[in-house]
Amino acid sequence: MTTHKVLFLPDGKEVEVEAGITLMEAAEKAEVYINSLCGGKGVCGKCKVQIKSDGVRADKHSIGFLSKEEIEKGFVLACQTKVEEDMEVMIPPESRLEGEQIMMDESVVDYSQPEKVVVSKVSVDPMTLFDPIVQKIYLELKKPTLEDNIADIERITRELRRKTEYQYFDVSLHCLQGLAAKLRENDWKITATISKRANICRILQIEPGNTSEKHYGVAVDVGTTTVVAQLVNLRSGDVMGVAGSHNLQAHYGEDVISRIIYACGREKGLNPLHEAVIKNINNLIKTLVDENGIEVEDITAVVAAGNTTMSHLLLALTPCSIRLDPYVPTAKNFPQISAREVGININQDGVLETVPGVASYVGGDIVAGVLSCGIADRPETRALIDVGTNGEIALGNNEWLVCCSASAGPAFEGGGIRCGMRATRGAIEQIAIENNEVKYKTIGAAKPRGICGSGLIDCIYELAKNRIIDGDGKFNMEATQERLVEYEGEPGFIVAFAEQTETGQDLIIGESDISNLIRSKGAVFAAIKSLIDYVGLQFDDIESFYVAGGFGNYLNIPRAIGIGLLPDIDPDRIKFVGNSSLMGARMALLSGHALEKTTHIANAMTNIELSTYQPFMDEYVAAMFLPHTDRRLFPSVDY
Amino acid sequence: MTTHKVLFLPDGKEVEVEAGITLMEAAEKAEVYINSLCGGKGVCGKCKVQIKSDGVRADKHSIGFLSKEEIEKGFVLACQTKVEEDMEVMIPPESRLEGEQIMMDESVVDYSQPEKVVVSKVSVDPMTLFDPIVQKIYLELKKPTLEDNIADIERITRELRRKTEYQYFDVSLHCLQGLAAKLRENDWKITATISKRANICRILQIEPGNTSEKHYGVAVDVGTTTVVAQLVNLRSGDVMGVAGSHNLQAHYGEDVISRIIYACGREKGLNPLHEAVIKNINNLIKTLVDENGIEVEDITAVVAAGNTTMSHLLLALTPCSIRLDPYVPTAKNFPQISAREVGININQDGVLETVPGVASYVGGDIVAGVLSCGIADRPETRALIDVGTNGEIALGNNEWLVCCSASAGPAFEGGGIRCGMRATRGAIEQIAIENNEVKYKTIGAAKPRGICGSGLIDCIYELAKNRIIDGDGKFNMEATQERLVEYEGEPGFIVAFAEQTETGQDLIIGESDISNLIRSKGAVFAAIKSLIDYVGLQFDDIESFYVAGGFGNYLNIPRAIGIGLLPDIDPDRIKFVGNSSLMGARMALLSGHALEKTTHIANAMTNIELSTYQPFMDEYVAAMFLPHTDRRLFPSVDY
Repeated sequence: MTTHKVLFLPDGKEVEVEAGITLMEAAEKAEVYINSLCGGKGVCGKCKVQIKSDGVRADKHSIGFLSKEEIEKGFVLACQTKVEEDMEVMIPPESRLEGEQIMMDESVVDYSQPEKVVVSKVSVDPMTLFDPIVQKIYLELKKPTLEDNIADIERITRELRRKTEYQYFDVSLHCLQGLAAKLRENDWKITATISKRANICRILQIEPGNTSEKHYGVAVDVGTTTVVAQLVNLRSGDVMGVAGSHNLQAHYGEDVISRIIYACGREKGLNPLHEAVIKNINNLIKTLVDENGIEVEDITAVVAAGNTTMSHLLLALTPCSIRLDPYVPTAKNFPQISAREVGININQDGVLETVPGVASYVGGDIVAGVLSCGIADRPETRALIDVGTNGEIALGNNEWLVCCSASAGPAFEGGGIRCGMRATRGAIEQIAIENNEVKYKTIGAAKPRGICGSGLIDCIYELAKNRIIDGDGKFNMEATQERLVEYEGEPGFIVAFAEQTETGQDLIIGESDISNLIRSKGAVFAAIKSLIDYVGLQFDDIESFYVAGGFGNYLNIPRAIGIGLLPDIDPDRIKFVGNSSLMGARMALLSGHALEKTTHIANAMTNIELSTYQPFMDEYVAAMFLPHTDRRLFPSVDY
Repeated sequence: MTTHKVLFLPDGKEVEVEAGITLMEAAEKAEVYINSLCGGKGVCGKCKVQIKSDGVRADKHSIGFLSKEEIEKGFVLACQTKVEEDMEVMIPPESRLEGEQIMMDESVVDYSQPEKVVVSKVSVDPMTLFDPIVQKIYLELKKPTLEDNIADIERITRELRRKTEYQYFDVSLHCLQGLAAKLRENDWKITATISKRANICRILQIEPGNTSEKHYGVAVDVGTTTVVAQLVNLRSGDVMGVAGSHNLQAHYGEDVISRIIYACGREKGLNPLHEAVIKNINNLIKTLVDENGIEVEDITAVVAAGNTTMSHLLLALTPCSIRLDPYVPTAKNFPQISAREVGININQDGVLETVPGVASYVGGDIVAGVLSCGIADRPETRALIDVGTNGEIALGNNEWLVCCSASAGPAFEGGGIRCGMRATRGAIEQIAIENNEVKYKTIGAAKPRGICGSGLIDCIYELAKNRIIDGDGKFNMEATQERLVEYEGEPGFIVAFAEQTETGQDLIIGESDISNLIRSKGAVFAAIKSLIDYVGLQFDDIESFYVAGGFGNYLNIPRAIGIGLLPDIDPDRIKFVGNSSLMGARMALLSGHALEKTTHIANAMTNIELSTYQPFMDEYVAAMFLPHTDRRLFPSVDY
């Protein structure tokens, strides 16, 4: 087997790989993460890298994505270029995946009352008490006598019945093995770790002495784009840290559909996708554990929330039928399993709970979101809008819940937009245009590398408001603007000039990009409108709209209304909640009652299949305009 | 590492072993089973073997157990002799463990009504329906449509709810993985294997097509001396076969106490004992599977019943505290576990249920026996007497249950009696003495090698009746008997002369043997009497006495009364039920209701601790006479 060395710059990571694999695969081995939207199919052009060694030139396929200048400088597509010699490869800023600014949390949570903490910043059912799904209970047992010589495990369950509200305890064989010595060598003082599910309490672990102080859990949001984990102290309820990273599955496809195709298109295709997300989670846990100076053995519970495909890949369940009519997942409720069963590296007896979903395209992330926003808790009707590659809407109150999903495309997460990027360092997150002058703000105050979701919303709004584009998203060529240029065969607008950007090239938004964004916002708005119509309500009947999604750390709600993404109601009734899926997962971790409620929410929620619902089609067509073909729906919009 | 070859005769099995291990260990490796009562401590002298090679002579320690003649012929104790050269070893008949005549079953069971079979020959609760703890249910599912696109597993549980009485189904992750393809590649026709425990149904396995015909379970009686397994067709309830073998743990000690000492006296001492019984069970399963032409994968349930120590060793639970005041086991109720978890080789998702016990010395074997005799089902008070190394008595009706155990010694199983042996080929099982002539019948009509339990009862009775011994078990030296001899320093009686026996030596019962038997029968009777007195009843208040135990295939009840082992009541009210533990295990396998009932029985049964109960001591002393010091208790006895 011939091997070659590949050195990745600017990181300086070197890897020795088998000849013939792609640079993309080599990068993965080197743990260098290169952008990709198409999963290595050579159709998105996001994985441009520059070969520093001579002799390697772009293949025919890649040439279509590269300028003449780039070709001369040795640029190629990493997914189309094979390693046939030792190489030095420079990854330019726009092709890098970075993780600094991942949307990791919602906002500060009040833990001043740990015993009765309301684990959400949004109003929730006051019954959601602090009652972690895994508990550690220190027991000082009475020594057996001839008058009281019940079996060791009964002595423990008797005491647990006294100390908890539970009656029935199940115990793993593992716990019984060696128990006799553990009790007798530690003067009958032990700590039992118990996990609850429905009415059954399982004794997971019995440790010598009092270990109840060392008691941690992890909440995970398994997003298609990013995986975020929170380390939680299960004794106090405190969040000890949060860490996020790009979903390593991105190497196999940007969106759920291309990942399902990858998993189902080859033998054992599921394995790398499953292993990627497990690696993500284990890396995050390791980071959190190291930062906080704790041991992985002291983590005994993980609650994960993700869309239905992510949950399937997490549990190594075949996702194939999810994308095929009639869109059937293997499961929407998932069993409590041993975390070790899927390779998650926590205590060997620790559990993994996966938040249940509603349907193939309304998953546990939405259920967790509904939980965290308390939508199912009160009589007022409220809505959760999660804007991602799929726009998902849930609507309801303590009596009924409906939901739907619409394929919105990844535009607001930076996908399908040439200058689009995720909300990481160097992304423009705010834009204002005044008197032909463009002002912007980037994440990390860095030189701009692209525009993230919140910046794209601003951009469209400002272009429309300044009449640089019309309601249909076409550039108004009469506007005299030095920034209006011809770009890749269509009109475009220079947001940042080459001398300002990190890439040294103009940062341009083109007509087709705008068209993509209008399709996305149209799909989301049409879904909101269709669902509210479906239940016979008006926008005004909805007390609150909660908006979740990976736009960035910041979402300008009036401008989201201004482009017709969100309904034109009092902006105070719209709240940006950020990562509501993570918040819900943490609530479920901290409260068995909340975890049970996820099942009730998932079971109670009626999924409206928009793909076969004609009113949605009509609404979608009507929404393909800025702000909308029916201006009466957006009376406050001022352009 | 030096190794030597050891050839065991007459089997001709050869094994290559590390120098320095004992012949006993070498025999184990060769799967040649040598008798042992003391577990290799060199104190019982039961493991005599003859070295055919020159140069190996008995060590000092062994000499005490060997006659001068034996020493000259090269006899040694296998447990005390190390392998230091290549050897040929002859195992004489009396040192062999054989398995042909193990007490494997109770009697024929009527399966004429498989759907409502009463799985016991004794009257039982008519509610004990045929309802195996693991069931296979063939499902032809409707294909999903857009109008009915619930998740795959919900489609299965929906159909299972329709086809069974259960509401809630739990599923293992293993079942979900690969499920989508399994359904779609098999036209939505599958067979679900479900197991029940309390109100929860677990889906263990989902197989393509209809496999409901291939559905088997195994009931196991894990006895201290023998392990017996029955293969049961879980579709019809039919017993397909039964196989038994000596408990391989015998190498580590004959009785539970010496095995506990072995397990607890050295590091990892538990492992070989655990592995021995698992090997027993796997060997039996292999035999049954081969004989019946089925696959181990089609066995999905095992129910095991054993005394508390055997259950602990089966599950690899530390047994140490069982023998120490205050006699506390690790558990008396055992979790349903995956059979693979302890190494039992059935279907990888198959379950193991272990019948619960009452206390350290009243185990699952007694609970299974009480179940099988239906004692807890009816208002009439009945008793179960299990005569083994421990004599265990259970007494009660559908309102109350009490039990006790008394250390009876292994006399009736052939232990502690020089000419005693288990009920295997060559054992004398019936004896009659008339006009100074001894008539006997051996198992397998073979030359006599020893006397088993039923033969010993006959022997004592006949010796007493013929006034060859007195009521205190001493030989009446005035009786002119050519068979009365001096033997090992005490009077003895020749049951069979040297020319008749397989060993070529006189088969003699000595005064100390008779004394041991009187102690054993005295302990059992005293326990019965104490327990019946304890609850304020008389023998006549007990409707039926069920007698279980390894006496042999035959128990002469009038003679068991005649020596004062059983109370002197109408013999028709006493029934010999043989292996009631195995019968109970099979009932629990065939009926979830019966399995649940074992927990109720175990919880309801009050254990009377005889070791600290003065009336038992008094009864014991009073019972140390033939038939009893109080003749009024045995009016029918005619000597």
